[in-house]
Amino acid sequence: MDIAIYIFDKLTALDAIGPYEVLQRLPGARVKFVGAERGPVRTEQGMLGVVRDFSRDEVTSADILVVPGGIGTRPLIDDQPTLDWIRAIDAGSTWTTSVCTGSLLLGAAGLLEGKQATTHWAALEMLEQFGAIPTSERVVEQGKIITAAGVSSGIDMALRLTAKIAGAEAAQAIQLGIEYDPQPPYDTGSKAKAPDRIVDLAMGGLMREAAAADPAPEPVRGAGG
Amino acid sequence: MDIAIYIFDKLTALDAIGPYEVLQRLPGARVKFVGAERGPVRTEQGMLGVVRDFSRDEVTSADILVVPGGIGTRPLIDDQPTLDWIRAIDAGSTWTTSVCTGSLLLGAAGLLEGKQATTHWAALEMLEQFGAIPTSERVVEQGKIITAAGVSSGIDMALRLTAKIAGAEAAQAIQLGIEYDPQPPYDTGSKAKAPDRIVDLAMGGLMREAAAADPAPEPVRGAGG
Repeated sequence: MDIAIYIFDKLTALDAIGPYEVLQRLPGARVKFVGAERGPVRTEQGMLGVVRDFSRDEVTSADILVVPGGIGTRPLIDDQPTLDWIRAIDAGSTWTTSVCTGSLLLGAAGLLEGKQATTHWAALEMLEQFGAIPTSERVVEQGKIITAAGVSSGIDMALRLTAKIAGAEAAQAIQLGIEYDPQPPYDTGSKAKAPDRIVDLAMGGLMREAAAADPAPEPVRGAGG
Repeated sequence: MDIAIYIFDKLTALDAIGPYEVLQRLPGARVKFVGAERGPVRTEQGMLGVVRDFSRDEVTSADILVVPGGIGTRPLIDDQPTLDWIRAIDAGSTWTTSVCTGSLLLGAAGLLEGKQATTHWAALEMLEQFGAIPTSERVVEQGKIITAAGVSSGIDMALRLTAKIAGAEAAQAIQLGIEYDPQPPYDTGSKAKAPDRIVDLAMGGLMREAAAADPAPEPVRGAGG
């Protein structure tokens, strides 16, 4: 079971590491962190380096593709080598997945045309430009394509995928293995639940992150993590 | 606000990245990934490389210390340079925290004597050897020392810590920023909730991971992730 996780500069680390932590526990899993070339990439604010063990040229197929998000997705929407690679891996994959704004790259690669899809709440309308149907759910399944909402949702997505691949008991055991019995301190984790003031605060934080990550950031549409 | 996350070979990635993803969003946060020396470490099964940007010598204080877990904690329990560094950072920290079996290192450093503490469910009794009082809660606060349970619990811990440092609204906004509205597919994320069969399956998985990570693994006591 080959699992390719595509990483790039200014990714959101948890988008990639949440699914990694679940999927690496699948029996026979071989997880490969893949990028344009080998070597480290840095997260949005530059505070963390994650290593690409494989260049795109070295990975020509995978059973599962995971595309995480982050402000670093924005330039990749027009990066043909990235989109070509995503299309090539998708052509042979059993499952093609994204977390957060990783779905913008699936969309730019033409994989979401006419399909329901999700992404980070602050970027949801951006999916329309790719012919996708923005859908405010935590995990959206459309055949073999599974998109997950913002950042932390990749854990839920990967557990659901695990159940499809290895069965409910395996998924339950992995959920226990990572002690995933979440106790979020507040009930403000989705835009639908959070008060307007908290949405504004969160959007302000995302805008500051985007500005810090990019000296010439896009306005609000580009602010999703 | 200096945040030091101590990483080492055979760590559990999500233990470190969960808190990182929350705490890096604190206003003024400077997160430093620190290890024995600079350079990459590999996770338990070797599938992921995470970069240590700083050696221990380069980081002599931090406002927040985060010690993640993983099978790689076991040899560090007797590694005096690691324990000396943890003690030195704790001496000047405002908050000293751990996720999963990271608490074994806090214990080995002498920081949990007489204190309630938690860790991964499969390693809970190991805390006793350090004079700690094993406590089956997701997050255990004892003054400035906060221990969290297995793997995914670091997200909850970090959000609670964020509320203490920056207030409830900031924590709520960060929770929304990472869209942390968890929808775990099963209610088997804690040992207390999981059926015996799932506990056995999870323990088997942890044992296989430990065996794969270490050619001469410890028996059951060492199996906690």
